[in-house]
Parts: sequence; C-alpha cells; structure tokens
Amino acid sequence: MSTVLEETPKRKLAIVTGRAYPELGEEVAKCLGIEVLPTTAYDFANGEMYIRFKQPVRGADVFVLQSHTTPINKWIMEQLIMIDALKRASARSITVVAPFFGYSRQDKKHQGREPITARLVFDLFKTAGADRIVTVDLHATQEQGFFDNPVDHLTAMPILIDYVRSHMELDNVTIVSPDAGRIKVSERWAAKLNNRPLAFIHKSRDITRPNHAEAHGIIGDVDGRDCIVVDDMIDTAGTICEAVKVLRGAGAKSVTLVATHGLLSGPAVDRLKECGAREIILTDTVPVPAEKRFDGVTVLSIAPLLAAGIRSVFESDSVTHLLEGLPSDMRARNIYA
Amino acid sequence: MSTVLEETPKRKLAIVTGRAYPELGEEVAKCLGIEVLPTTAYDFANGEMYIRFKQPVRGADVFVLQSHTTPINKWIMEQLIMIDALKRASARSITVVAPFFGYSRQDKKHQGREPITARLVFDLFKTAGADRIVTVDLHATQEQGFFDNPVDHLTAMPILIDYVRSHMELDNVTIVSPDAGRIKVSERWAAKLNNRPLAFIHKSRDITRPNHAEAHGIIGDVDGRDCIVVDDMIDTAGTICEAVKVLRGAGAKSVTLVATHGLLSGPAVDRLKECGAREIILTDTVPVPAEKRFDGVTVLSIAPLLAAGIRSVFESDSVTHLLEGLPSDMRARNIYA
Amino acid sequence: MSTVLEETPKRKLAIVTGRAYPELGEEVAKCLGIEVLPTTAYDFANGEMYIRFKQPVRGADVFVLQSHTTPINKWIMEQLIMIDALKRASARSITVVAPFFGYSRQDKKHQGREPITARLVFDLFKTAGADRIVTVDLHATQEQGFFDNPVDHLTAMPILIDYVRSHMELDNVTIVSPDAGRIKVSERWAAKLNNRPLAFIHKSRDITRPNHAEAHGIIGDVDGRDCIVVDDMIDTAGTICEAVKVLRGAGAKSVTLVATHGLLSGPAVDRLKECGAREIILTDTVPVPAEKRFDGVTVLSIAPLLAAGIRSVFESDSVTHLLEGLPSDMRARNIYA
Amino acid sequence: MSTVLEETPKRKLAIVTGRAYPELGEEVAKCLGIEVLPTTAYDFANGEMYIRFKQPVRGADVFVLQSHTTPINKWIMEQLIMIDALKRASARSITVVAPFFGYSRQDKKHQGREPITARLVFDLFKTAGADRIVTVDLHATQEQGFFDNPVDHLTAMPILIDYVRSHMELDNVTIVSPDAGRIKVSERWAAKLNNRPLAFIHKSRDITRPNHAEAHGIIGDVDGRDCIVVDDMIDTAGTICEAVKVLRGAGAKSVTLVATHGLLSGPAVDRLKECGAREIILTDTVPVPAEKRFDGVTVLSIAPLLAAGIRSVFESDSVTHLLEGLPSDMRARNIYA
Amino acid sequence: MSTVLEETPKRKLAIVTGRAYPELGEEVAKCLGIEVLPTTAYDFANGEMYIRFKQPVRGADVFVLQSHTTPINKWIMEQLIMIDALKRASARSITVVAPFFGYSRQDKKHQGREPITARLVFDLFKTAGADRIVTVDLHATQEQGFFDNPVDHLTAMPILIDYVRSHMELDNVTIVSPDAGRIKVSERWAAKLNNRPLAFIHKSRDITRPNHAEAHGIIGDVDGRDCIVVDDMIDTAGTICEAVKVLRGAGAKSVTLVATHGLLSGPAVDRLKECGAREIILTDTVPVPAEKRFDGVTVLSIAPLLAAGIRSVFESDSVTHLLEGLPSDMRARNIYA
Amino acid sequence: MSTVLEETPKRKLAIVTGRAYPELGEEVAKCLGIEVLPTTAYDFANGEMYIRFKQPVRGADVFVLQSHTTPINKWIMEQLIMIDALKRASARSITVVAPFFGYSRQDKKHQGREPITARLVFDLFKTAGADRIVTVDLHATQEQGFFDNPVDHLTAMPILIDYVRSHMELDNVTIVSPDAGRIKVSERWAAKLNNRPLAFIHKSRDITRPNHAEAHGIIGDVDGRDCIVVDDMIDTAGTICEAVKVLRGAGAKSVTLVATHGLLSGPAVDRLKECGAREIILTDTVPVPAEKRFDGVTVLSIAPLLAAGIRSVFESDSVTHLLEGLPSDMRARNIYA
Repeated sequence: MSTVLEETPKRKLAIVTGRAYPELGEEVAKCLGIEVLPTTAYDFANGEMYIRFKQPVRGADVFVLQSHTTPINKWIMEQLIMIDALKRASARSITVVAPFFGYSRQDKKHQGREPITARLVFDLFKTAGADRIVTVDLHATQEQGFFDNPVDHLTAMPILIDYVRSHMELDNVTIVSPDAGRIKVSERWAAKLNNRPLAFIHKSRDITRPNHAEAHGIIGDVDGRDCIVVDDMIDTAGTICEAVKVLRGAGAKSVTLVATHGLLSGPAVDRLKECGAREIILTDTVPVPAEKRFDGVTVLSIAPLLAAGIRSVFESDSVTHLLEGLPSDMRARNIYA
Repeated sequence: MSTVLEETPKRKLAIVTGRAYPELGEEVAKCLGIEVLPTTAYDFANGEMYIRFKQPVRGADVFVLQSHTTPINKWIMEQLIMIDALKRASARSITVVAPFFGYSRQDKKHQGREPITARLVFDLFKTAGADRIVTVDLHATQEQGFFDNPVDHLTAMPILIDYVRSHMELDNVTIVSPDAGRIKVSERWAAKLNNRPLAFIHKSRDITRPNHAEAHGIIGDVDGRDCIVVDDMIDTAGTICEAVKVLRGAGAKSVTLVATHGLLSGPAVDRLKECGAREIILTDTVPVPAEKRFDGVTVLSIAPLLAAGIRSVFESDSVTHLLEGLPSDMRARNIYA
Repeated sequence: MSTVLEETPKRKLAIVTGRAYPELGEEVAKCLGIEVLPTTAYDFANGEMYIRFKQPVRGADVFVLQSHTTPINKWIMEQLIMIDALKRASARSITVVAPFFGYSRQDKKHQGREPITARLVFDLFKTAGADRIVTVDLHATQEQGFFDNPVDHLTAMPILIDYVRSHMELDNVTIVSPDAGRIKVSERWAAKLNNRPLAFIHKSRDITRPNHAEAHGIIGDVDGRDCIVVDDMIDTAGTICEAVKVLRGAGAKSVTLVATHGLLSGPAVDRLKECGAREIILTDTVPVPAEKRFDGVTVLSIAPLLAAGIRSVFESDSVTHLLEGLPSDMRARNIYA
Repeated sequence: MSTVLEETPKRKLAIVTGRAYPELGEEVAKCLGIEVLPTTAYDFANGEMYIRFKQPVRGADVFVLQSHTTPINKWIMEQLIMIDALKRASARSITVVAPFFGYSRQDKKHQGREPITARLVFDLFKTAGADRIVTVDLHATQEQGFFDNPVDHLTAMPILIDYVRSHMELDNVTIVSPDAGRIKVSERWAAKLNNRPLAFIHKSRDITRPNHAEAHGIIGDVDGRDCIVVDDMIDTAGTICEAVKVLRGAGAKSVTLVATHGLLSGPAVDRLKECGAREIILTDTVPVPAEKRFDGVTVLSIAPLLAAGIRSVFESDSVTHLLEGLPSDMRARNIYA
Repeated sequence: MSTVLEETPKRKLAIVTGRAYPELGEEVAKCLGIEVLPTTAYDFANGEMYIRFKQPVRGADVFVLQSHTTPINKWIMEQLIMIDALKRASARSITVVAPFFGYSRQDKKHQGREPITARLVFDLFKTAGADRIVTVDLHATQEQGFFDNPVDHLTAMPILIDYVRSHMELDNVTIVSPDAGRIKVSERWAAKLNNRPLAFIHKSRDITRPNHAEAHGIIGDVDGRDCIVVDDMIDTAGTICEAVKVLRGAGAKSVTLVATHGLLSGPAVDRLKECGAREIILTDTVPVPAEKRFDGVTVLSIAPLLAAGIRSVFESDSVTHLLEGLPSDMRARNIYA
Repeated sequence: MSTVLEETPKRKLAIVTGRAYPELGEEVAKCLGIEVLPTTAYDFANGEMYIRFKQPVRGADVFVLQSHTTPINKWIMEQLIMIDALKRASARSITVVAPFFGYSRQDKKHQGREPITARLVFDLFKTAGADRIVTVDLHATQEQGFFDNPVDHLTAMPILIDYVRSHMELDNVTIVSPDAGRIKVSERWAAKLNNRPLAFIHKSRDITRPNHAEAHGIIGDVDGRDCIVVDDMIDTAGTICEAVKVLRGAGAKSVTLVATHGLLSGPAVDRLKECGAREIILTDTVPVPAEKRFDGVTVLSIAPLLAAGIRSVFESDSVTHLLEGLPSDMRARNIYA
C-alpha cells in the first residue's frame, strides 16, 4: 500500500458580491459565463450585518466584488466580513474587486495628526484575508505600494476612449485638464486620440496676479473647439462645472465631461444639469441610480473590463493588454441606453 | 562631551472621542479631571470621513473612545481611522475604549461559511494600531482570547447592583434569568444580593413536551415576588418582554429589567412600554437618546467605571477591584434624573 | 527555446502520526487506503525528542495526527516539532489533526492574571507552521475564532447517535444534561432522536434554597425512563457520576453515559465502575487503554470520521455533511468489541 | 521583603552614523550638544561590511544617520546592518535618519512587472528593526504611507527660503516650476515669499502642436525678472539646465536654482557650470564633495533641521513647527562659505 | 482644564518562577533583594496545567525563570503559559530566563526532513509574548540568531574559573577538550588561566588509521599533569567518561571535569562515579537533586550570575562585563557544601 | 448556469538572473532546457537600479539567481528588488538562488553590540517576498535556522569529488583540514574517498607552548603524500596559503587546494600563485573572471547542481540524493578548459 494518495487538482473560480451594487456582480459573472455564488446577507436591528455563503467555496479562487458607494463605511465593512467568512471556509485565494476604491483620495498627510486612510483600508483588507486587489483608476498610482500583495490596477480609459471614438467627430476635439494636477492623464488621452491638442484650466491667482481674487484661466486654445474635460472622478462636481463655464466663456463650441467614477454626491446632479456640458460620460464603478440620471448622462458598463481582469488573474494571464486598449471582443456599452 | 543626552520622562494621558456619543467621552474626561483632546471630524459628500487631532499626541498614552451605536459600521470605521492617525502621530500607546463592543454576538460559526465577525473586529483594531482594548460586558467571555494584546474586560454589574440596592427592598426579590444560557450571570447577581432566590424562564417544548408548540415555563418560585430579570443587552427586547409577560402570568408582584447595554433597536421601545415591567435599568454604553426614553427607563452613567479603568491602565494599577464592587468614591448615577 | 518550463501538477496526500496514539493514525490511513508515512521518533536521555520523516513530503498535503492524551504537554510539543520538520521539508500544506484539542477548557480568563491557554496552543500551532486545524467537539465553539486560518470543527455526535439508535429502544429514552451549561447539546440530541423528552440536573442551592448546602435536583421527568446523559468529555467523572446517582434516586430505569472524549483521568474509572450506569459510550479521540476498559464501556472508532474530514479537505469538498449525520457508507464501530 | 524592585527611569538619546557622510552626523550631534557614539566599521576584502558600537546602547533612543549617497546600495545596507546591531544590543528605540531617502523616485509601477522599490526600502528598514523614519522632502508625499510606523517628514523649505530672503532682493523675483508636475511646490514658495508671481516651463508639443518636435514654452511672465527655479532634487541636471536656457532665452534677468537634494550625478556639474544660472542653492542631505563645488554653488547645512527634528522626537514635542519656518534660533548656514 | 494628565513613571521589576526548580528562582530573587512574586500553579488530572499570578504585574518588567530540566516538554510549556498570562495581565516587558535552554543541541538539519527544534523553541517563546531571552552557554553561539529580539547570552565560565582558581594549584594544570569540536572553548579557558597548556582527545580512526576500530588518542602532553576537561554540558556522560579513562591511561596525575549544565541523565551518575575523575564541577542551571549528588560532585550556584544579568537588563546597563569575569562582589559558591 | 468556472492548472517554471554573473543564470537555464526570462536592468546616474521583467511571470514558479560577488551589497539589493517586482507581478512562488550566500560568515555575535548580518540578510529576502532559498555550502549549517521557510542547502562536494576522482591517483592522497574548525568536513571527504588518511594544521601556540610566537604544526602524516586541503571558501587565501607552506615544509609530495567558493579577494591571486600548490579546484558560485585565472586554477561549473536542485524543487522531488553524490547523468566540468 502506498504512503501517498494522489490526485490531479482542478482550479475553481467563483464570484460573490456584497449588497452595495449586486447588479454589477451579476453582470461580471455573466461576462464570465457563470452565476454569482448565492449569499445570505442582511442587517440586524442595531445595524450589525450577517453574511453566509450558500454553496461551498473550499478550494475555490473567489473574487469578492463590492462597490464602495454610499453608505461607504458599511459597504467596506461588509466586504471585510465576506472575506473573513471566505477565509474560514477554506477558499484557496481571495481577491478583492473594488472598482472604485474607497478613501483613495486620503493618500497622504497634508498636515500633522492626520491619518493615511487609503493605506489603512488596504491594511484592513489584508488583515481580513485578501490575497490580491483588483481596482480601477486609483486616485494616486502610488497607492499600489500601500498593499503588500499584488494589485491589479486597471483603467477605464480604453472603455471611455472607445465610446468617444465612436460617438464624436475627433477632428475638432481638444482635451482639457480641469486643473494642473491632472495634465498627465490628459496627455495620455491626447496621445490615444491621434495627438489631439491639449489645454488646461488654471487658477490665475497662482500664476501671475497674486493679489487678485481667485480666477480661472485657460492655457491652450479652446475657441470653437469641441472640448473633452477628463478627470478620475466626479464627486460634488464643483471644480468640473466651473471648468465648463470657463471653457464656454472662452468660446468652446461644446464641452464633454469624462470620468471613471461617477460618485455624483450631494449637489452634483444639480450642478451638472445646469453647467452647460454637452454630455457627461461615466462608468458604473459605483451605481448611478435612476434619480441621478438625466439627459446627457451616459453610463458605460465597467463589467466587461472587470470580467477580463478576473479571467486574466484566474488563468494567470498578463493584464497588461487591458491597460492599452479594449480587447477586440469588447465594446463600450451604455447600460441605460 | 558626552555621547548621550539624558532626560527624565513624563507620561501623558489623553482622551479622544469619536462622534458616535461625544457626551460620554466628555463625561469620562471630566471624571479624570481633564478635557477631551479636541478633534476635527466630518464627512465628505460621498460618506468618507476626515479626522485630525488639533493638539499634539506625540508620546502620549491615548484612549480612543467610541460607542458602537447606530450606524455601527460607520462608527467602528471612524474609530479605526482615529487609531491610524494616532499611530502616525507617534502616540506612545493607543487604547481602544469600546463600552459596547460591536459584533460581540457574532463570536462563532453556527454553520459552515459564516464569518466570526467579533474576531475580525478585534483584528481590525490591532491592524490599525491598537495596543489594548477596554470594554464592558462582552457577549461571551471567550472573546478576550480574540485579541493578542491585553483586554481589560470591565463589568457594569457593580453599578447596576449599587442602584438596585439603594432603590429596591431586597427581601422580596428573586433574580430571574430570561433563558437557560444566562443562568450563570444570574447566579452572580443572586450571590451579590445576599443570596436572593433564583428562577429562570425556559421554553417548555425543549424540556418535556416535544410535540407541543413552543411555550414558556418558569423554574423556581416567582408568585408574589419582586422579580429582577438580568441580561447583558436589550436589543429588540423580544425575549425579555416575553419573559415579563410569563412572570406576570405566574403571579410575580413586580418585574424589573436590568441590562448593561441598552441598544433598544427597532420595536424595542414599543415593546418595553407595553410589557408591564416596573422599571428598566440600563447604562449608557450606547447613548439612549430622548426619543427612546420614557417613564420607567433608568440610565446609569458608565463614565465613572470607564474613567476608573482608564486611570488604572495609565497608572499601572490592577483593574481587578473594579470587577468586584464599586470603589468607595463611586455611586451609580441616573444621568437623566 | 522557451523561457518557461510547463508541467501539470499532481496533488499528494500523506498522513503522519506522533507517538501518543499511533494506532489511531494507522486506522485513519487505512480508511483512506494508504499507509502512515513512516517516521523516526524517540526521546533523548534528558527528555528532548527527535523526529525525522523517512520518506519525502515535498509538495504533499500532510495531515499531522496526534492525540492530546497524557503526558499531554509532551505530545503537544511532539506535534509542534513534527510541523516544524514538515515545513522545512517543503510540505505544500500542513494540517493539524487533534481529535481532542488539549487545553480546550482554558478558553477564557475567570480572574485577572490567568492565561487563555487554548488560544496560546492555537498560536503555537500557527507559529510552528500549521495551515489548518481539524478537531472534534471543542469545549467552546468560540475557540474556532482563536485560529486565524480555517478550523474544520467536526462532531462525534453522528457516530454516537448511530450507535445509540442501533443499540437502544428509543421509545422510553429521555436525554439528560448533567448541568445547565450543556442544555443546548442535549437539545440537539433530543431533536436528532425524534424529539425525545429532555431533562437536566441542577444544583438546587442555586435555584431556590440559597442557605442550604448544595444539593442536586432534576428538571423534567425521569421516573421509569431510560436516561441518556450527554457531555463533551468525561475527565475525572465526578459530576457525571453524581448525575447518575441523582437520576437513579429519582427512579430512572437505566442511565447511559455518552461523551466524545473519554479522558478517564485519575479516579474516573473507579467512579464509573461504581456509579451504576448501564453503559458508558465514548469515542477514541484519546486512547482508552486496556487498564481503563471494563464491562459497560463502549469505545467507538473516531477514525472513519477523521478520514472523511481529511478526504474532504484534500479534495476540497465541503465538510458540512459530516456535521449532520453519518455518510451512508459509515457505521459506528466498537473498536474493542 | 517586597516582590517588586522599583526605579525611576532615565531616557537616553544617542546618535550613530554610517560611513557615507560622517561629517553630517557629527554636525547633528554638535547641534544637540553631544558627540556621535563611536562605531567600528570597515569592509572585508570581498565587500562585506563589519559594524560594532564601541559603547553601550542598551535602553537608549538611538538615531541612526546615513546619507543615501553613492554607492547608494552599500550605504543603505550599512544602515540596515547598524539597525540590526542596535536591536540585538537592546536599544529602546531605533530611528532611521535618512536626509535623502534612496529610491524615493521609484514610488509606483509605470508598467507591469516593475518593482515599487521605495516601498521595499521602507520595508527593509522595518524588518531590520527601525521604529521610525526621519527624512526630508520625499519625492512623493504618499510615500509616508509606505511605512507602517511613524514617519517624521521634514522639509528643507524653511532653510532655503531663509537663505533666499537674506541674499536676494525679492521685489523682482518670479518663482518658476521646471515642469507641470512641480507647480504645487512652486505655489508654496510663492506664498511664503509674499505672493511672488509664478511661472512654469512646459513642453509645448504636449500642449498645442502635437506634430512638432518637442519644444519648451513658458507659462507666465519672466521677461526682466529674477527667476528662482525650484525642484526637490538635482540629479543629472538635464531638465533644470534646459529650463535655465529657456528662461534666459525668454528674457529672464537672472536665474537661480534651488533644490533640497544636490545629487549632482554624472554630467550634472558640467551642465550646471555652463547653463548660465546665477546661483545654485542646495542643502547637504547628500555630501557635495570638493570636486563638485564651483563658484555659484551654495550648500546650506541641513544639520540644524535634523537636530531640531531629533530633539522633538526624543522630547515628544510636535515637529509641526519645523514644517512652517525656521525656529527663531536657527539660521540657514552656507557650510562651505 | 488641561487636555492631558501627566505623571512621572516608575519602573518595576518582578521575578516569577515555574515549578521546575523554584529554589533557583528564590535564590535569584534573594540576590536582587526581593521575593519571588507568588504564583498559583498545579496540574489537572489529565496533565493540563493551571497558572495564575497572585499579585498585579501590570506595568512591571517581569522575568520568567524556568529550568529546562526533566520532564522538559512540560516545563517549557509551563513557561509558555506563564508568558501568556503575563502578556494578558499587561506586563510592560517579559523576559524569559532559561539558564539551560532546552533543545539547544537541535540547532541544524543533519539530514533532510529533520526539524530545527532550537529555532522552533525560540519562536514559541516569541509567539507567547517574550520580549527577550536571558540564557547561559547555548550549545552553538549561532542560536542567538534564532531570536528576532535581543538575547543576553551569559556564560558560566567566570564562575567555574573562579572556583578552579581558588581550589586547585594551577601550575601543573593542562586544559583538555573532550573532542575536536570543543577546542575553541578550551582555548578560552587556557587563556583565562594564564595560558595553561592545552590538549584534546581525538578519535584516532578519523585521523590516521581509517581501517581500525575507533580508538581515542590524545593530542598534547598530559603525562603527570592535572587535567581539566571542559564541556558545555554533561548529559549521559559517555564521551566525557571515556575521556577520563584515556587521560588516566596516558598518565594524567588527576582529571577534573567541568561543565555548565549538569543534566546527568540516564546512566550519567553511575558512569561518573566509576570513571575515576577527581572532581566534577557543575552549576545548577538545572537542578542536581540529592539522588544525583555524590562525593566529588561540586555544584556552583548560577543564581548570582542570573541576578546580575537581570539587574543589568532592568537598569539598562551593559552585560558585557559579565562575560569577562566575576564582578568583584561575586564569588563562586558551592550550594551543597 | 454554474456558479463556478473550472480549469486544470499548469505549473510554469521560469529563471531570472541579476547582473552579477548572468552567464551562470544562462548556464542553469540551458541545463533545464529553457532560456532565462529576459529582464531590463540598469543603473541610474546616482546608483539606484531599475528592474523590469520583459515577459509575464504571473502564476509562475520563479527562481531568482544572483551571485553574491563584488560589489556584494549592490547585488544583494538588486536581488531584493527583483523579488519585489516578481511579487507584485503575481508570481506563484519566488525562490532565491544564491550559490554563495553573502554575509554567511557573520552568523553570530562574537562580542556585544555586533550584528548577526547573516540572519538579517535571510530576513531581508523574506520581507521582499522570497518563499524559499536554494544555496550551496553555507559557512555554518545552523544558518538554515535563520530562515522561517524552507532552505534547500546543497553541497558542491559531489562535484569536487567527482573531479578529484577522475584527475588524481587516490592511493597516495591524504585529506588535510586547514584548521581545527574544519575537521568535520575533511572527515566527510576522507570517507567519500575510500577512507583516505586525514591530517590537519594547528596553530601550535594554542596546544602546548603558550608563550611562544604562533607557529603551525601538523597532526597526522603528510611526508611524501599528495595532500588535498579542503575548505568552504578561499577569500584572501591567507590561511590556506600558509597551510600549503607548512605542508610542503613537512615533506608533502604535492598540495592540492579545494574549495566551493572562490572569492579570491584582494591579495588572494598573488598569494595562490606563489604558495606552491599543485592545483586549486573551485566552483563558479561566484564568477572567476579572466584576470583571476592562472595555470593551476580549475573552475568547475556549479550550474548542473543548481539546475538539478531547481528541477527537484519544481517537480516536488526530494533533493536528498543531490547531497550524496552526482546524479548519473552529471559530470564535473571545468568551465575554462
């Protein structure tokens, strides 16, 4: 009799999703040809949450999808609890899929006695049991270094560009950065769009008139141009709506707003409705519920990108190709069209 | 010239509090003869929180007080962020003070693929940078073993007993456990109150009539007695209000409810108002806001106990005496009387 | 020429056993259709132990079986040393199989300045290199939370119940809990046995006569019944033998004792022989050597359950079905019959 | 007899320095009124290094100063070895003082399969035993989040500004950023210098003429102005010397270069000599040896700032005041004047 | 009112001891002018141990003394449990004092699939909560590197030499190493004793006559000399008794055996009684109970050395002086004289 | 639709090499039938290094080969950076291959306040992300215990012996240890060569004439013999060249030097040329560049041994057979013949 029992292993992929935006999880699973693994989840009367997976996950590579939308602290905590349950249920590996990574903007200390909450959130995921993070367009690229394990940092740019290419006449386009800090992203856009011209908005007090009240100036030529303003997220939309006004005041023929993360918090919807932009193009890394949608808002599905990233992780393929452009079988898709 | 610079160190204690129940932090600080160290804290439009301490904490032993009340996930996350900021600001030690410890009831797997969320929360505090936990009446004593560092596990029993002793005639009292799982706590109460008689409620189906619908029976004699029902927390108040009814049906002269944590979630207030209890005695480990208070609810201040615990930790005294009875200079105090 | 060498991996399972109870390891291996991987193990003159595995374990999923019997500290240490050797020999994964988990009862601090030794032992296994624990009927379910990695917590209840079902006439059976703390386990037994009636022993001083010396009372009807007293372990047998006497005094027709772990320490055998129980049903999570066996003691083999658990872990199957009842191909087996 | 021996502790500060730039360590110690703790350090024939401290460090708060100058990998490794020796010699705390933090620029992945070496170096210090890092002007502020313990992130700006204020007529000054990525630092300079005007250099291809060869443009008015170009470091000096040429071509009256870290690698000295700058103002976070000095180079001592930071850490004072401006007793000092 | 409470801290030293050799703990405490902190410790019937400290240890620097004598695995485990209890009781620091460090000889893999048990034991102490180790004459000096925190590695050589100096006429002494592996220790002895001559025993088969049965040869001149054979420990005494015979056969006038650790396991006492040695000089790092003592055995107290080491650790003095020779106030003392 | 996606995994092996000795990496890859995975690596002007892998490594078992030759600190750091990049690129496992392990000699504290740099280097590799170490002939076997994960400790002895067997007439051979500390290695050599006689060099002052200047003596018979002097490394060659002289002075017919690691630092080559040795036999665990080669130096390729070790690790075979003798398909090969 042998002292060893042998077996040829199978690897198994499963998707679970929190309650923040379950439709996204279902869409991602559909792209992969499977169903979301069913989960029981509810709140107790005092707000504590209960989670249980209804099917075995032992030995599986599990991807835990949660959208860090409002109420953001609750949904982060739910994702942590899901990870704990997966770890104790003997999942082979646990990958956090956070299309918009909460607290991504709190990435440094501006003053003494501040936290670095982005680092903290990465640490919390690690402690709960996450082996890897898949996310899209972090606020600062440096944040990949906040995690000790691999981060697959995807970008929605190929999806957004694919849509722009097929819906706008590019000859008259100028790419505009809404402030100095975002010029590098705008450069990448300009390069991808056959070297379209660039411009950016600056607060003129900082440049040449220190004693004047703050005013906005434009560097670059926008008169008569179809301007595309590019940012990573639209939260309260204050800065970006100001940019639209300045551009229109400077003679722009049209202004299109593009951003990966459409948080659309607080006064954002009202501001955007009134700012005069031609179109606002977002993805659904966070849900854009019916009450935030209006004519002119386009929401492109992030699910195919996430599914492609997950498949690459599972099959140990490189994700590098996803950073360059859409795979040939993938098209930007307006989910509310 | 020497190669060494010498100094006699001072130790410094500071108290900071989250926004869940700042009045408790102020009360604790007052008991210690200091003020809460001022903190800037607010929410961004998408729900992310910002924290900054307004005064130096370098080298200080800082106690971070937060009440895990609703919305509980937000307040746990706020406390984690505060710890991160303290760690990066070079606090000498960081002690979590959680008078009611959130998720304390999720302390084991009842079935496969469940989390052990209580362990997770202890781990999150450790990861953020907590050196120690001070808490009151955990749901299961075993949870002290969920933390790798010291846990100072206090009990509100001395405060509750002090109040009962001075407000009730003890001769006619019987201590009642609302279910079989809580008999040991009731025994401790009975012993502290000069060996008052004990009784407890049981669900009779489990004992002798397996085929009948669930009914409640009472073990022990309650007819004509002033019953005190003891539990660790009152959440939705379902079980405990049922106990009151059963006791009254069995001829109890009066029924008094006692619990450390008055969560009073969902239907709790309505149930308690109608259940026929003489008095409901709680502490304010979580806030009992005006809309939850009514005639018959007594809320005893937990602050003196926390302050005594904090002082013992800071001065490296034993906390054992706090587990036995109230220090001679401490009296149970009804904070809304 | 390629830059990568490819291979289809095999997974390999191996069983090793310490010297505490090697017969159990052999029985488990036999159930799996393999032999125990041979190990050299002996003591040096001063009590230090030497361990070496005689065959390669590189890349194998190794299950390290040890029974935490007397001398318990030595056998725990031996298991730790075996884990260290496996780790350094490049085992792919290391699973501790501890059918009875030593120090399981020291799961909390009753007073200040006590250890939580159960947590410590879990930590020692982790440090040595254990990836997972398989164990049976821990003293408190909360202890699963003492380990940061997965714990497969099996129960011997299906084996014990299978035996009872086939050896006793159930109509006249009443399930008895030897004290208030074990009622929940008794409830599970009663439910599994077609809702047999329940009873339990209580120390009457605690309930209604505080000034009397301790006496034992019975809740529930036992007169003329065939009582089955259920506990997790029988150590010195003091409490359980007292229970037998009380039950017989109350007119029980017969008393059967059932427990997973038959430690039978110190005066246990003498007490059990004289207590008047009809039968004592145990499993061999710890060995029951010849000198502890006597008429009326039945020892059921735990090996098939451990083997089924190990196979599930290795093949990434769920173990949930093992918690419910015996697999159809498994029968309770009296190993000394 | 007592069971406890009591003592009032003293805290002791000691400074040790590696061999990269021992003069800086001596200068820092002098500012603190002590001498560097003597160390034996030499290389073996194959390049391995030997370190030993000649006096006790047990119980001391030790600051380990090393300048990450060329050969940078050797000096980082030497600092790691010093930390290991301090840890094993029972230092109470170990603070890395790295005035210029090596690999600070490798703070993110630009492409797949790159390292994040800045994070790695922080991790190496942590592993060796460092409790805290004191450093000056990291390349990206986010890097504070690469360390799990406190980072005291100082800035040389107060020293540089103090020098500029006392050596230049400010009325005609314009602050210039050498590229778009550094505008925020320039804004801070402008604000500190009574809101001097700002300008910055941009590569014009990126802005408006995509098909032309790369050219440099200037945003803001520099004709007839005394320009101060501000950067965090001057390494090979390519970009900054190009900036000087462009500014002079645009009619600047004079160009002054200011940077914290004067690496002056490779062709830097030749380029700087010929670029036409009026003055180049640096600090000695890395040594500027005689062969790199020439007329027009001013090297300000960083030692007083480091000493003030160290003193604050040791005495548990806040370092926040050091971020705002020079303490009243500190003056920028040209160390080679 | 202030936001900070200030205090000048006291440091407190306490000694606790396990049950392996409590007399040694008492002796060490006496040397320090205190009493051992009282501890409750006993075994349960199944061999599990119970520990509790009877007085507060919060904030104290506690030294946990245990002699790793037989049954060695039990005493190591007891020490681990004591550390756990101290950690949870908020001791400020925990120092393991292990005069003889168990498993010190298992410091490497001689073959594949062996453990490195010495490293494991260091890791177990770390996991339980030990901050530092104080030990005497480890089998291999490299083992200090098995611990991540400081190890104060003392040597009994000054005590042994002090005794030899005052009890033997040194002029006729030759130092003898019992095998080739111990020559370096013998060299240190020879140097300390005014450069006495050296000799050593070798197994002649290894040197020049490979085909002969193993025989022992002597390198160096021992005819008519008073030989002192030096080793780190005497376990079963096989090798060292063989050395005595060979030396006597070669004309040695007398043979004295010296070792730090007198394990005296198994046949050791019988062998030593009959080997013809003049005197056997040991210390009591492990107890030498009455039944192992006989004429010619001298046991020197290790307590003063341990006490001096502990005092140095507590007062942050260097221990280096203890490695060189006895402090002027310390004399080797025969504890059974 | 299923909730799980299944796949049969492949395992992939890849070799990457640093710049210290790329020829060795290529040779190892060739032995495995693959090519080294291409890597971009260069130095920035200030000495910081840049690394990027040109092909995907996700999911691969990657072996990172670096020779710790001069400049040793740079090459260790380069290997650490490579590991960091592999970890972040999602390699499945990372194995450090360090044929000569830098700082291996600094394995203990000889005096207080020294580092244990060998332990530190093992820790640095672990921190960067190494899962395993493959190395050859560590200076002290105990160092395997410095790593918490597996170390595959190979030996070049089979290669060196294979060469000696086929190039020397063994009848007249005597194995010589250059000092007392290396006798055990010489014994292993003697045993492997049909029990050749042994001898060793000792410094005679240490043995019998303490007041004389240091002189070298020989134990064993070397007159007219072909002596083979065996050591682990030849660094500056001082000791070993002295041994040659002593042996020749004692009438040795010839002297052959054998060592695994040919560091040949500083004066080594000059000393070796002049010492009168017949042949110097080394392996290329570090490169032996043209300027260090001369008649009489033989450099045997270590690549086949490393390749065999790597293949065993990858295929989960035991490496034990590699410690005993050359596999039948492997021959010692003089790489410069």
